[in-house]
Amino acid sequence: MTEFKTLLEAGDFRAGPGNDICDVTGVRVGHQNLRGDGRCTGVTAILPHGDDLYRNPVPAGCAVLNGFGKSSGLVQVEELGEIETPILLTNTFGVGSCANALIRQAIGQNPGIGRGQATVNPLVLECNDGKVNDIQQLAVSEADAESAISAAGDAFQQGAVGAGSGMKTFGFAGGIGSASRHVPLDTGDYMLGALVLSNFGEAGSLRVLGNRITAPEAIAEPDTGSIIILLATDAPMEARQLTRLARRSAAALGRLGSYLGHQSGDIALAFSTANRIERGSQELHPIQRLCESRMNSFFKAGVETVEAAILGALWHSTPQQGYDGTRLPGFRETYQRHFQDKQSVISA
Amino acid sequence: MTEFKTLLEAGDFRAGPGNDICDVTGVRVGHQNLRGDGRCTGVTAILPHGDDLYRNPVPAGCAVLNGFGKSSGLVQVEELGEIETPILLTNTFGVGSCANALIRQAIGQNPGIGRGQATVNPLVLECNDGKVNDIQQLAVSEADAESAISAAGDAFQQGAVGAGSGMKTFGFAGGIGSASRHVPLDTGDYMLGALVLSNFGEAGSLRVLGNRITAPEAIAEPDTGSIIILLATDAPMEARQLTRLARRSAAALGRLGSYLGHQSGDIALAFSTANRIERGSQELHPIQRLCESRMNSFFKAGVETVEAAILGALWHSTPQQGYDGTRLPGFRETYQRHFQDKQSVISA
Amino acid sequence: MTEFKTLLEAGDFRAGPGNDICDVTGVRVGHQNLRGDGRCTGVTAILPHGDDLYRNPVPAGCAVLNGFGKSSGLVQVEELGEIETPILLTNTFGVGSCANALIRQAIGQNPGIGRGQATVNPLVLECNDGKVNDIQQLAVSEADAESAISAAGDAFQQGAVGAGSGMKTFGFAGGIGSASRHVPLDTGDYMLGALVLSNFGEAGSLRVLGNRITAPEAIAEPDTGSIIILLATDAPMEARQLTRLARRSAAALGRLGSYLGHQSGDIALAFSTANRIERGSQELHPIQRLCESRMNSFFKAGVETVEAAILGALWHSTPQQGYDGTRLPGFRETYQRHFQDKQSVISA
Amino acid sequence: MTEFKTLLEAGDFRAGPGNDICDVTGVRVGHQNLRGDGRCTGVTAILPHGDDLYRNPVPAGCAVLNGFGKSSGLVQVEELGEIETPILLTNTFGVGSCANALIRQAIGQNPGIGRGQATVNPLVLECNDGKVNDIQQLAVSEADAESAISAAGDAFQQGAVGAGSGMKTFGFAGGIGSASRHVPLDTGDYMLGALVLSNFGEAGSLRVLGNRITAPEAIAEPDTGSIIILLATDAPMEARQLTRLARRSAAALGRLGSYLGHQSGDIALAFSTANRIERGSQELHPIQRLCESRMNSFFKAGVETVEAAILGALWHSTPQQGYDGTRLPGFRETYQRHFQDKQSVISA
Repeated sequence: MTEFKTLLEAGDFRAGPGNDICDVTGVRVGHQNLRGDGRCTGVTAILPHGDDLYRNPVPAGCAVLNGFGKSSGLVQVEELGEIETPILLTNTFGVGSCANALIRQAIGQNPGIGRGQATVNPLVLECNDGKVNDIQQLAVSEADAESAISAAGDAFQQGAVGAGSGMKTFGFAGGIGSASRHVPLDTGDYMLGALVLSNFGEAGSLRVLGNRITAPEAIAEPDTGSIIILLATDAPMEARQLTRLARRSAAALGRLGSYLGHQSGDIALAFSTANRIERGSQELHPIQRLCESRMNSFFKAGVETVEAAILGALWHSTPQQGYDGTRLPGFRETYQRHFQDKQSVISA
Repeated sequence: MTEFKTLLEAGDFRAGPGNDICDVTGVRVGHQNLRGDGRCTGVTAILPHGDDLYRNPVPAGCAVLNGFGKSSGLVQVEELGEIETPILLTNTFGVGSCANALIRQAIGQNPGIGRGQATVNPLVLECNDGKVNDIQQLAVSEADAESAISAAGDAFQQGAVGAGSGMKTFGFAGGIGSASRHVPLDTGDYMLGALVLSNFGEAGSLRVLGNRITAPEAIAEPDTGSIIILLATDAPMEARQLTRLARRSAAALGRLGSYLGHQSGDIALAFSTANRIERGSQELHPIQRLCESRMNSFFKAGVETVEAAILGALWHSTPQQGYDGTRLPGFRETYQRHFQDKQSVISA
Repeated sequence: MTEFKTLLEAGDFRAGPGNDICDVTGVRVGHQNLRGDGRCTGVTAILPHGDDLYRNPVPAGCAVLNGFGKSSGLVQVEELGEIETPILLTNTFGVGSCANALIRQAIGQNPGIGRGQATVNPLVLECNDGKVNDIQQLAVSEADAESAISAAGDAFQQGAVGAGSGMKTFGFAGGIGSASRHVPLDTGDYMLGALVLSNFGEAGSLRVLGNRITAPEAIAEPDTGSIIILLATDAPMEARQLTRLARRSAAALGRLGSYLGHQSGDIALAFSTANRIERGSQELHPIQRLCESRMNSFFKAGVETVEAAILGALWHSTPQQGYDGTRLPGFRETYQRHFQDKQSVISA
Repeated sequence: MTEFKTLLEAGDFRAGPGNDICDVTGVRVGHQNLRGDGRCTGVTAILPHGDDLYRNPVPAGCAVLNGFGKSSGLVQVEELGEIETPILLTNTFGVGSCANALIRQAIGQNPGIGRGQATVNPLVLECNDGKVNDIQQLAVSEADAESAISAAGDAFQQGAVGAGSGMKTFGFAGGIGSASRHVPLDTGDYMLGALVLSNFGEAGSLRVLGNRITAPEAIAEPDTGSIIILLATDAPMEARQLTRLARRSAAALGRLGSYLGHQSGDIALAFSTANRIERGSQELHPIQRLCESRMNSFFKAGVETVEAAILGALWHSTPQQGYDGTRLPGFRETYQRHFQDKQSVISA
């Protein structure tokens, strides 16, 4: 059998030491799981750095690849080009609670918010896990969001965990996946990381580096669902450049066999940990900006990293049993069963 | 003294019978007020029609004039060109609760949501009323949102009421304002209505049909705050046309003296009650669409209606006392005191 | 050897009778070639229907996938959602001449243009063929544009012809490619066609239905260049829906191995031959609109059709010799040489 | 009579020494006029600095306020956030020739363009002067464009000159107008300049600082036509910030009485002369960026400057006689005749 791990590191760029988004220094990830009583959902928190994001926003850009989604906070990211809270991922009906939690946390750390100081823009992105999670419960609470933030560290689990608990990808269990790549330039070895909440793709359409992989037990449905794509880098980019980087993610979805189906909220968001903004600081910020032509390497690496992150979500997810009996099969078993003797998979 | 009511009806188009958004047949508005214990806030609900919006969405388009705002639901409006819940207005930190209430109401009416049927996109728009409301309380509850929806009727109060309770406009108390205009075309007499949640404008910059109006007691601050602008019409427009209509609202803000200041979430949303969509209906919808060149009358009437709606918010608002003692003066007294003998005001 | 023709028709949808954009009834295509004296360029005209487009515009939507390009006319397409001239494709420095030709043709047919009637929006899309064409000559003339329009018919050549004469794709000669697919719905068998001006892709990155194909002689360079993607359908869609359709093209680029490189103008434009607009006609247009959920089939078919069109450009292009000796190898020979015994190609 | 010059300098910010866009150091403007034989048109060139713009692009952002226009080059400005040629203004049918001239000039100065180096993005913005100019002649030649560029200096004429020769504004002769304002911040006294090609506004709707001004002889028509708005500053802004600045121009149009009528191409473009980009230079650019909250002063000054520039176009334009006898009355005479004894005008 081909070692799938190899596929997760395949491509033109060298994977980072952990091959996940935490290879970008300072980025941390935490999960909170909700299980039982029909629940198969959760929250995942991504923290761009360890300090207060309201006081030190980071440059960011986003791309709505398909707007059939309910994420909140993007309007301001597009206007101001920055992120000022942790990023929370959750299910479609958990957005309100997560937003409230982010607001309360920001107020707790900055008592002037809404009292002289500007309010805060909670950034919450979502996918619909209603296939196996009883989403009508609106089970995600503010406390769950806080727990995910508190749990954030530089090592985290992938697969059907946190916000990814009940996600479905190309008919299999999906969820959280991550990957990273080195982008070596003249001025340094930059790191690019991706984390996805993968809930998209039509069963039977998956192409793993070019080979269609299906299982009889995969749930056959159109390309509904959604995907949230986060990209992080330590290279100094301005918001416009990060937006360009985010937009390229559509190529990764296509590469895996997606056609950005109608009923899907596909959103990509990229941020840089360089050039932190200091709220209310001096009038002129001296910053570094990457030469535009060098963006090309990041575009190439970005598509590769997102593709690897999605494969990671598939690889790490275990089968899930839904509240109504629906079963999401695991990708790993299918892959191992069907392709254990096809070396051609890796040749692609 | 010039009758201000005249100004609210001034312009090139004839005002509707009520000179508010409910002149568009079927549109209803309701408020829920929160007062006491430092609270000066609320929720306002706008219902495009009397039936279930999830089953019968209406065509819509939106324009983010200034994206320094936290409204939610706009991403999907831009993608699908439709509204599928009531529109709720509230304060910046009430968005989460209002979104949850809309989700729960939609599920109550459509038990298939999230269980086979698509999820629902709650549409909640906001302004920051932290000048007089103790916004850190996150006082708006799901029950408040439900109350606003239940209170919806075809007559409603304007001024510092509902979501408009604690709003500030050009240094005065602002809030909810509304207006309507007849747009006579060959095929019929169409109605165009506007409702604003007015919380914008620098004190000292207000131009009432061309005349600067200031009061010593107006709160002097830059053009912060926000404005939410809703436009409703019974003319048949497609989403792209409604987006064009919404974008023209920026001219009305300019006309009153605004410069769309940095720290402001200025968002316009237009919907049509014609060409209701039937979810899951036949494959081809026969619809009517307004000839593009006729849009010009609506653009002209739209700017006039939005301007009148904002003046309505000013005129109907009473002075507000903030949780920390801040006082928002009323515009009406200032206007009457300073301009009672200046007939020139109306000559503009 | 696998019959490549099979690949051009592969997928989940059945190819149209000609497997090109002219399978959409009424659409015609014409070329004008410029060769000799260092020139290896041309013009390609696409006519959505046989009548005067100024008097009968068609609904259209566009998506700028990567804006590093010099196409003209898109601003108005985005605002009005319609096309009012033939679409001309040419090289980057031929845009001005082609625009002038379209203006003169429209005036010839509508003497009121610019004299009481609105002016006209020439739609010209481009790629840079400077690799083999001496683009500094600005060789494309208005007469060339007229010739391409005059040559338009419902059968046309693919490959290194017309605007595609000097194009490069994944290191090989590229150019004009086209494909079509049936989209069977309840209300009828709709046709979807694509035509591309293919000038993109990094040598060595090409994946033909999942298999990387490279040739030693392919020109190794980053993913520069551009691609213009046209989609045509006889299904009744409004501009917003056509924009959604156009945006999905990014998935096809990804599927073939592209990452939408930095220095590339990647633009997709979709139009419908249904619901023709009649300029200056009645105030209300009765039109048909496709139910939104049915768009899903077109999204899926669209990605497949665009992928096939690009493969068509590769397959039909013959090797090109540049003005300075640069040689663009043909893809067909490479494919036949390297893959004649690999049946696995077709298994993907 | 009120000195109109006072109105051109009115507002909250102090006008620059010349009260035109050349107060921004380095910016130069030149005109080429075409008259006789039915022609009443021309070209106006704006050069952001005195060096080669292809080698030293400047950061820029643009806002399509109303996309019923035929300007070219904006797609790339939006993607890359920079300008790499002089900006040419001309009539709607002169875009092709002006684009060609810019291409040829860039090649002349950079022989590697299109031969190893990237092609160049000609930036040409337009309005329709068909009311008095026989636009069907396509009279503007490449030589005319070159002449406008050659004529560029730091003093230039306003009114019905250059590209503004045949323009119409609120029923009067319009054309080129310009203004400037000081924006004093802690780190320096920045300059903001505006130049407009003014061809918009419905006769009878003009509000000069709040007072409607009409003349019997003004041509009564809907708000058709267009306006091109250029903003220049020496303050260091990134492309996103310049885009925000450009978008505020809509408020100035509203303030003067416009409603951004249907048939109008209203486009704003802002550039900064700080943080010049060096093509192909080092991998990391050290740049300065203005703190976002300081943008507020520029937003306020921007609206004021654009309003003043439009009034400048009105004030400086002389009556024009069209090729078919149509007469565009001059604003100045109307103003002087009707308002010589109304001091109230200045009180606004």
